[in-house]
Amino acid sequence: MTTKKTRAMAQSAAKAAKASSTVKVALLGFGTVGSSVARVLAASKFPGVQLTHIFNRNVEQKRTSAAAKSVSASVVWTENINDILKSDVDVVVELMGGLNPVEGWLRKALVSGKSVVTANKQLIAYRGASLAKVAAQHGVQLIHGAAVAGGVPVITGMQQGLCGDQVMRLSGIVNGTCNYILSRMEMGADYATVLADAQQLGYAEANPSADVDGYDARAKLCILSRIALHAELDPDAVATQTISTVEAIDFMYAKELNCTIRQVSRAQVDGTLVHARVAPMLVPLTSPLAWSHGTQNMVVASGRFGGDVVFSGHGAGGEPTAVAVVSDLLSVAQGCKTVQLPVRKRSVTGEFMAPHYLRFVVDDKPGIVSAIAGALAKVGANIDSLLQRPGHPKHRLPFVVTTEPCLTSTIEKAMNSIAKLDCMLERPLCLQILVPEDKPE
Amino acid sequence: MTTKKTRAMAQSAAKAAKASSTVKVALLGFGTVGSSVARVLAASKFPGVQLTHIFNRNVEQKRTSAAAKSVSASVVWTENINDILKSDVDVVVELMGGLNPVEGWLRKALVSGKSVVTANKQLIAYRGASLAKVAAQHGVQLIHGAAVAGGVPVITGMQQGLCGDQVMRLSGIVNGTCNYILSRMEMGADYATVLADAQQLGYAEANPSADVDGYDARAKLCILSRIALHAELDPDAVATQTISTVEAIDFMYAKELNCTIRQVSRAQVDGTLVHARVAPMLVPLTSPLAWSHGTQNMVVASGRFGGDVVFSGHGAGGEPTAVAVVSDLLSVAQGCKTVQLPVRKRSVTGEFMAPHYLRFVVDDKPGIVSAIAGALAKVGANIDSLLQRPGHPKHRLPFVVTTEPCLTSTIEKAMNSIAKLDCMLERPLCLQILVPEDKPE
Repeated sequence: MTTKKTRAMAQSAAKAAKASSTVKVALLGFGTVGSSVARVLAASKFPGVQLTHIFNRNVEQKRTSAAAKSVSASVVWTENINDILKSDVDVVVELMGGLNPVEGWLRKALVSGKSVVTANKQLIAYRGASLAKVAAQHGVQLIHGAAVAGGVPVITGMQQGLCGDQVMRLSGIVNGTCNYILSRMEMGADYATVLADAQQLGYAEANPSADVDGYDARAKLCILSRIALHAELDPDAVATQTISTVEAIDFMYAKELNCTIRQVSRAQVDGTLVHARVAPMLVPLTSPLAWSHGTQNMVVASGRFGGDVVFSGHGAGGEPTAVAVVSDLLSVAQGCKTVQLPVRKRSVTGEFMAPHYLRFVVDDKPGIVSAIAGALAKVGANIDSLLQRPGHPKHRLPFVVTTEPCLTSTIEKAMNSIAKLDCMLERPLCLQILVPEDKPE
Repeated sequence: MTTKKTRAMAQSAAKAAKASSTVKVALLGFGTVGSSVARVLAASKFPGVQLTHIFNRNVEQKRTSAAAKSVSASVVWTENINDILKSDVDVVVELMGGLNPVEGWLRKALVSGKSVVTANKQLIAYRGASLAKVAAQHGVQLIHGAAVAGGVPVITGMQQGLCGDQVMRLSGIVNGTCNYILSRMEMGADYATVLADAQQLGYAEANPSADVDGYDARAKLCILSRIALHAELDPDAVATQTISTVEAIDFMYAKELNCTIRQVSRAQVDGTLVHARVAPMLVPLTSPLAWSHGTQNMVVASGRFGGDVVFSGHGAGGEPTAVAVVSDLLSVAQGCKTVQLPVRKRSVTGEFMAPHYLRFVVDDKPGIVSAIAGALAKVGANIDSLLQRPGHPKHRLPFVVTTEPCLTSTIEKAMNSIAKLDCMLERPLCLQILVPEDKPE
């Protein structure tokens, strides 16, 4: 054994010794999740974990709030981050979100020998690999079970329970806001109404772009890819498509095709390349992804040996997310370690081979179907079906074409030329149709 | 720190040192799962894991079989268990099943400093606590991720990802054979035909009792209770009900009630008592448990804070089970450790408060409904609905009564008196109806 290894092990034994006594915990952020973490810790009184510090801006307002009732009187409340970084806390729990200033603080925490538990998906998607290196160098832990799918233990489940498989494909519903909007639309509501409701309920931000345009889901997909596919992706390279162009009529047509519509985050290994995309998709009603309603999250991991494994549950909300955070805290407190396999940087493409759903809204004139069919034929895309529901005026007629499987870029080429047709009243909608591959026996 | 603790830590550091090099692995049992484990190890070439020994009776037959092709020539094949127990292997992987002689072998392995990975649910249900103590005393690991739900990482997911919650209730489909039979019956087949098919496909034993009468599921439920509810149950104390009395007609009536029928294993914490039962139940089509088809497994863990979390996938078969075994092997190889919380012995009751489905087959005469209603009224059970499908002869008439929620013992008292009525042509069937408690938002 090398001397370096011996030293690292002595350090890790020292850490374990520390872990066997009580670990002191600081919370950064005392909002919905932070106060839930405090409440769960107070309710469960887990041995070996003690909340000692809470950091928040305008801390007095938090300290005197109803949510602070479960917090022990001995806890130090502060709005000065150095009170945490220079303290003797063993674990910093970060629940603030965003890259700045949080990243700098957490780097300092790791360097000063504090482990970090975080629910910050953007931070982990963009800086996870680099922060993990800092943690390893300083013999501390960086865990982020709450960064994807809240209370659903998909990260620990995949990291520890599926490491023996070769996971080739991930598909998931990892943004509760989009799932709330789309599953309400499935019941007949329209996008604008449901978005307004979601904003009122606190599910969606005033500016909903991060959710509805797929940036939140993209960060989570990259984290899942690292854990399950052992592939490090650049989040900015992952193609996204907004759900805001999906309309009520699309759910009606989807139903005729025995499908519903969900924001699906997908990643698939293809040699040294990863196909990845976050987009609204037609999902067959027989797929587990169609079962997910409201703010629920679901991830399907498809392994070479184990087939499809489904994880689902409450992906958001204070208490489900707190479960993930507290589970991670116990893991740090007990000096646990999970299986680590080599992760490789992978290039990303948004190309998928899939059947497509194309919805057009036209001022109906003879020759339109022929023009569309011609544009599709030109790129080699075969029409599978043509659907036209009754009850719409000829001068504003929505109708649907589905195609046999073809490449994303192929269909996009055809859509660009179809969009230029005079009769098109709005930009045509193009959605991929999910094909389940691991059918129940 | 106590000297004892220091010593234990030095030992654990030594183990970690060992873990950082290659661990030598012996397989006990080279059947479907054993040969799949060898194949997965050969295909994935995980660093740090080396298969060195294979034990099986009539080992020559195994060594020369097609399944042995993926096994390296350097592997020692033996039918003498001492070749394993006295060797320098680090991990014994037990895939033989049963209590004897396996338990004695594994105790010896643990005492001689070998970690054990096992898929043996009966062994872990009955002897898990005692074996875990031996493992801890000798500073080695005993892991059994494959003992429940094959390739679905429900044990690691709950142990590591839900430890921060207080899981109050488990409900699961953990016997693939029963699920295959019942989901085929849902499509219209009858019990005897499907059982014969299941036997032919290798899903069911010649004597199918362990599966259809619930003993296999009961062992798994006890393992899950230990992990998720931190409750140690006596498997023999868990009530079971056979699926063999469920008939095709019950699926028709279930459908009228928007339900299907599944073998459900349930456990629910109630102070220091655990309510537990393995039985065929009416499951609403909206429940995740109704989604499970064929040999799929599914476990729903209901936490006080996180709500319902669903795990599902392939619960049986060589390769899915091998994924769980190999994941456990990697965990041992990397010296991983999972969160441990105190487990307490708990008394078990089969009592549940539930609505009930009662199916009678009668020689129809005036006064029958009144007699049944009278027997139910006498114990205080309220009738919720009465269903009678057309097309059956009066002299052999199946009909159904559903009740409002009442206790198992209450309904059993009524059923015992109803069974004695002259007109009853067979013993009435009594099934509980599952009430979903955590509805999608």
